[in-house]
Amino acid sequence: MSEKYSVIGKNVHRVDGTEKVTGTAKYTFDIVLPNMLYGKILRSPYTSAKIVSIDTSKAEKMEGVYAVVTAKDTIHKKQGIWRRFPELCDEEILCSTKVRYIGDPVAAVAAIDEYTAEEALNLIEVEYEPLPAVYSQLEAIKEDAPQVHDGVELNINVTRHIEWGDVDEAFKECDVIREDHFVCSSQAHMCMETHCAAASYSYDGKLTVWASTQASYYTQVLLAGMLGMREGDIRVIKPPVGGGFGGKFELDSAQFCAALLSKKICRPVRIVLTREEEFTATKRRTPIVYTSRIGAKKDGTILAKEIRGITDGGAYTGMGATALYLTGFFSSFPYKYPNYRYDGYRAYTNTEPTSAMRGFGAPQAVFVGEQQIDLIAKDLGIDPIEIRRINGMVPNYEVPGQAFIQSCGLHQCLDKIDNYIKGRGKLPANRGIGVAAYGFMSGGIFNWFDTPYAFSSAIVKLSIDGKVDLFTGACDIGQGSDTTLSMITAEELGVKLSDIRIHAADTAICPADLGAWGSRETLMNGNACKMAAADAKRQIIEFAAAKMGVNIVHDLDIRDGWIYLADRPERKVSYYDIVREAIRGRDGETIIGRGHYTPHRKGMISPAYSFGVQAVEVDVDPETGKMKLINVVTAHESGTVINPIGITGQLEGAIMMAGGYALCEDQPMDQGKILNPSLADYKVIRSLDMPKTEIIEVDTYEPEGPFGAKEAGEGLTNPTAGAIANAVRNAVGVTITSLPITPEKIFMAMQEKKAKEKKAK
Amino acid sequence: MSEKYSVIGKNVHRVDGTEKVTGTAKYTFDIVLPNMLYGKILRSPYTSAKIVSIDTSKAEKMEGVYAVVTAKDTIHKKQGIWRRFPELCDEEILCSTKVRYIGDPVAAVAAIDEYTAEEALNLIEVEYEPLPAVYSQLEAIKEDAPQVHDGVELNINVTRHIEWGDVDEAFKECDVIREDHFVCSSQAHMCMETHCAAASYSYDGKLTVWASTQASYYTQVLLAGMLGMREGDIRVIKPPVGGGFGGKFELDSAQFCAALLSKKICRPVRIVLTREEEFTATKRRTPIVYTSRIGAKKDGTILAKEIRGITDGGAYTGMGATALYLTGFFSSFPYKYPNYRYDGYRAYTNTEPTSAMRGFGAPQAVFVGEQQIDLIAKDLGIDPIEIRRINGMVPNYEVPGQAFIQSCGLHQCLDKIDNYIKGRGKLPANRGIGVAAYGFMSGGIFNWFDTPYAFSSAIVKLSIDGKVDLFTGACDIGQGSDTTLSMITAEELGVKLSDIRIHAADTAICPADLGAWGSRETLMNGNACKMAAADAKRQIIEFAAAKMGVNIVHDLDIRDGWIYLADRPERKVSYYDIVREAIRGRDGETIIGRGHYTPHRKGMISPAYSFGVQAVEVDVDPETGKMKLINVVTAHESGTVINPIGITGQLEGAIMMAGGYALCEDQPMDQGKILNPSLADYKVIRSLDMPKTEIIEVDTYEPEGPFGAKEAGEGLTNPTAGAIANAVRNAVGVTITSLPITPEKIFMAMQEKKAKEKKAK
Repeated sequence: MSEKYSVIGKNVHRVDGTEKVTGTAKYTFDIVLPNMLYGKILRSPYTSAKIVSIDTSKAEKMEGVYAVVTAKDTIHKKQGIWRRFPELCDEEILCSTKVRYIGDPVAAVAAIDEYTAEEALNLIEVEYEPLPAVYSQLEAIKEDAPQVHDGVELNINVTRHIEWGDVDEAFKECDVIREDHFVCSSQAHMCMETHCAAASYSYDGKLTVWASTQASYYTQVLLAGMLGMREGDIRVIKPPVGGGFGGKFELDSAQFCAALLSKKICRPVRIVLTREEEFTATKRRTPIVYTSRIGAKKDGTILAKEIRGITDGGAYTGMGATALYLTGFFSSFPYKYPNYRYDGYRAYTNTEPTSAMRGFGAPQAVFVGEQQIDLIAKDLGIDPIEIRRINGMVPNYEVPGQAFIQSCGLHQCLDKIDNYIKGRGKLPANRGIGVAAYGFMSGGIFNWFDTPYAFSSAIVKLSIDGKVDLFTGACDIGQGSDTTLSMITAEELGVKLSDIRIHAADTAICPADLGAWGSRETLMNGNACKMAAADAKRQIIEFAAAKMGVNIVHDLDIRDGWIYLADRPERKVSYYDIVREAIRGRDGETIIGRGHYTPHRKGMISPAYSFGVQAVEVDVDPETGKMKLINVVTAHESGTVINPIGITGQLEGAIMMAGGYALCEDQPMDQGKILNPSLADYKVIRSLDMPKTEIIEVDTYEPEGPFGAKEAGEGLTNPTAGAIANAVRNAVGVTITSLPITPEKIFMAMQEKKAKEKKAK
Repeated sequence: MSEKYSVIGKNVHRVDGTEKVTGTAKYTFDIVLPNMLYGKILRSPYTSAKIVSIDTSKAEKMEGVYAVVTAKDTIHKKQGIWRRFPELCDEEILCSTKVRYIGDPVAAVAAIDEYTAEEALNLIEVEYEPLPAVYSQLEAIKEDAPQVHDGVELNINVTRHIEWGDVDEAFKECDVIREDHFVCSSQAHMCMETHCAAASYSYDGKLTVWASTQASYYTQVLLAGMLGMREGDIRVIKPPVGGGFGGKFELDSAQFCAALLSKKICRPVRIVLTREEEFTATKRRTPIVYTSRIGAKKDGTILAKEIRGITDGGAYTGMGATALYLTGFFSSFPYKYPNYRYDGYRAYTNTEPTSAMRGFGAPQAVFVGEQQIDLIAKDLGIDPIEIRRINGMVPNYEVPGQAFIQSCGLHQCLDKIDNYIKGRGKLPANRGIGVAAYGFMSGGIFNWFDTPYAFSSAIVKLSIDGKVDLFTGACDIGQGSDTTLSMITAEELGVKLSDIRIHAADTAICPADLGAWGSRETLMNGNACKMAAADAKRQIIEFAAAKMGVNIVHDLDIRDGWIYLADRPERKVSYYDIVREAIRGRDGETIIGRGHYTPHRKGMISPAYSFGVQAVEVDVDPETGKMKLINVVTAHESGTVINPIGITGQLEGAIMMAGGYALCEDQPMDQGKILNPSLADYKVIRSLDMPKTEIIEVDTYEPEGPFGAKEAGEGLTNPTAGAIANAVRNAVGVTITSLPITPEKIFMAMQEKKAKEKKAK
């Protein structure tokens, strides 16, 4: 027992690894139910149009078609996640009178197979009356812009304001002030598994839905609301999920239309979105236009920051209000701005709605903030690492009126990266290293639904042989929470990881959890699991203490299957034996442990924050502007590391995703029509394009986290775009203020720079 | 709230009714898993033979064959349910050195489809050396009989002795004594779904088994024992089951071979027994030869009974020891024999093993006992109902040293049937009514496994909208326990039946229950469910009491969704609202209620007993002996009736099954080979052959049962054979002492009677 932990901190195989590598994992789109039908959704070809009429009669008569649904089959409610703010629930599941973007769903068909359903869509006659449309946030907020939603002034969907200190006074005291403008583009979630759901409504009024979702509980609640059912009559089961990245949190058309069709005919219906629908008719990362002003003293102390962001909301609210808020909040990270002001505006446009995506407003904020801090450091003649040291957040720092940060390893991360950069020495020409520092929340304290449930809950049930069934609502969407939570439970209970069998995200058998978003699961559900294990442990230890006849001043604990005296570990009894005895002693009552966690007294954002610094080395071709990622070194601080290999996986995925956001991923549109809705045309970083990656773990201990742990999923997507932009500047001396950082932009900026230099001569 | 109960006592649709009538229920044989293979079992063609060698090489090489297993692949342990008595665990899963009956499993194959697996069986070369065999219990116990198991003297597998009072002395005081001999035959369970299982062993050492079983927990335990695994690494799931009737309690070859094959190759394997295997290679009802001696005073008081039963055990023990015991115990039912002696012997033979089947020794005992009581009544000149009144059990009667009977409605049942018979008036010639009285246990207190778990456990989990998830290990095998237990839970918690969703018999998610045997589920698991609901209710009522500000002397209860003052029901709050508030108040912790039940201070047989009297009217063709069942009227007493229509279903099924046992079902053998192993040749009573049936419910209240309820499943199979025999005697004056009561036997008996009468003249 020399090491501190037996299970956590070790590299372990994922608990769902075997079923995934052997192909036995059953994803939602593998679900086949008796008498199942296949659904397809008819979508708007217009960016904005009035629906004059819908005639489904021909489709209904087609052989092999069993049901067609339109808005008439709904309860005429608009959906949205902000249950407390009805005005933000603005999205019809099937459009009744107006369509607002190309892809807006209008009708759905259930048929004997997908081909028949697809054909039947062609037989639905929808008469549209095209309306003027608007395609960008800056156009949308003009006085005479077409209105996306009636009665929404200047198309402004939501505004967010964050402020502390006296920004205006502070700027007066600054030695250097600079204002910059930045443009952040969109990005698709690009899950390997498209949105899909299988719904089965039975004659006795119960609905079961298998959904590729990040939040089975929210799916249950939203379906209940939209179908006019009671939550408890709906069971949502989350099979293995092929990626979510924020795109599978809200209710989507696959889930809703499958349920609506199944409810109409009492037969199971499965809908799997096509790749084109996935690109055009789900949600996407929020494009934002920023104006940022920052001021510092000569010594590098930043006194004030003022930032304005205008987001392109697309046609509906989705989670956009939170993205708007978070990009403002994280624009202050990871620095101690004494005076800060953010004004955010979200504008409706006639485009695919923008919403949550991994990082949730923070990658954009970091792209802006980390470039600007480099730029002001240059203005001041201060080393980029040094200015971050001077202003970086520290443990027990309070973001005024916003958040309280307990653990914070930012400075250790800066030291590590500083050493790393120094170790690289002088780089060849056209090579540069850029850094970006970041922080992220470890579990969002956002109770949009006003659920009375705890944010996270867990139950453990012990077999007589000491094996553990763990029940949790947490959603493993590929990020590995099933493994992390099993490890936490095993560690706390003192058993082997293989002793745990996890049952997750089935709303009927698992206690509620708010789902996989806001980097919640490790800290929030981890706490619930740890408490559940501790509750069971307490019950077992009672019997061990009695059997061992210990002096009551001793504490007992369990580790590696032994129950032992904490201060005399050689005095021990077998956990496995005691469980059997305890159950026998308690008249056969199964040992059940329970835990639940909701953050308290931690503000309204997050109970904890992770930090890190990333250094990216790039090589720019001076002739073409083509840039190559050489390597990415990340000093990451997420408290105690539960599963190191899991963090490595998160890091690699994050670099792939955030690097893609920086370099190539984009969704260009022509008059609101996405031009690249296919895997052939949407460019991502593939495995062969990946740079070398390295992670430097910085151990801290977060008092609010299970065993001191924090998130390691989303935060890692934050730095890469900003670091790449800084690296490009270091390599070839140009600043690229808009995403993606294409060779064209670099080339043009270099040309412009040369022209300026020539002129200066 | 005028009626006593809101849910129980009402005729309700089965909770699994919808899925069954719409064809969406997925039985085990509907299970298809990714990469699944299909298994077949090679069985002995000999009744007794030494296995000289097994060569599987040709089968292994066949295309499409993925695995072949023989005894070499097992851990060389013998299985059986009597974990505390290793000598009774005598059955190899795959025979290693000897086969003992036609059907004994020798090898199993997993292949790409059933046809390939079947063909591969033909390629397995087994060299046998035939041995002498023995085919009936009376032959088996002879000194020079071939030995079925080495070292078992006289082939006597087990003996059972029950005795109280002083039988020999009591016989001396009797005015009338008679001794009779009876022979009870075999019967097949005839489940519509044959034995089947799908097993999936994964590379990480976990096994999941979907099994058509009466006891998923015992399947888990037995598989663990036989595979050398820990119980907790095995998950057994019971899908809907197409009938069990006692035949799907033990581990069967489908389950074991599927698991063994899957474990060998880490691929899912499904095995579904053919109908022929179902008839010849599972288990069957125990044939018994009885000698019964009974003595009474002139006034009809029976003073003593002495009975000997020799059962044909077939090749292995199975549950045979319990059948042997129970036929002795129930031979004393439902009468207050002051002096009683039973000697039972179970003999091994080279035939399909005999074991548990609905009634479990009692239908045989009732066939014997109820004829004999009619016969002695005739000897004494006492009315058959009257002699039963004189000797019938009464409430709070103790079977000396054996059992304590609390509720007992036998006399009310006798009165009802007496009235009914009197109402029928004088019957036409060759018609007769026979009666049989019976009692049965309501939950066997047999802990063969020495499990430390409570016999029954239940957990309820409440959604914020008041809907209930009920978790129980109870096994609905078609008898309707899912419905009964949901009703009990709904009643206790004061909600609607549709508010309950039951999750049953999945060992990973449900607390343990010993399964569906010994008429356990209503009383034992019903108690656990009631306690779990009461536990949840208590937690909710706390918040209601606080909200209502009630004087603490008041009691609150819940009914029909209202929480109300027990003595002022007009003061009430909504249950559904309070659940939401309570969860919110408890920091979001889900409300969970727990219950568990193990009988205490109720002896070693059962905590309660059901009773009844059945009258069967038959019409016998005097020319041919052909008999027709005209109608069957049953006065049944099972305490408080939970689901009346459920009892009607049980009654009709029982009459069909017990009537079949009486009239036509049999498994004739030629040298140990069953001659009728097909649905074409095995004759059962079909729906068109059914007599009119009527049930007269006699309400009693069983203090040990949930809401006063007792069993209504097996007891009903007890009386019919005996009542029919008595009816035949009443119709045409002949006594048939062996089953089945065929036209031939009646005809021959009538011939003999005529001859005797002729001779007497």
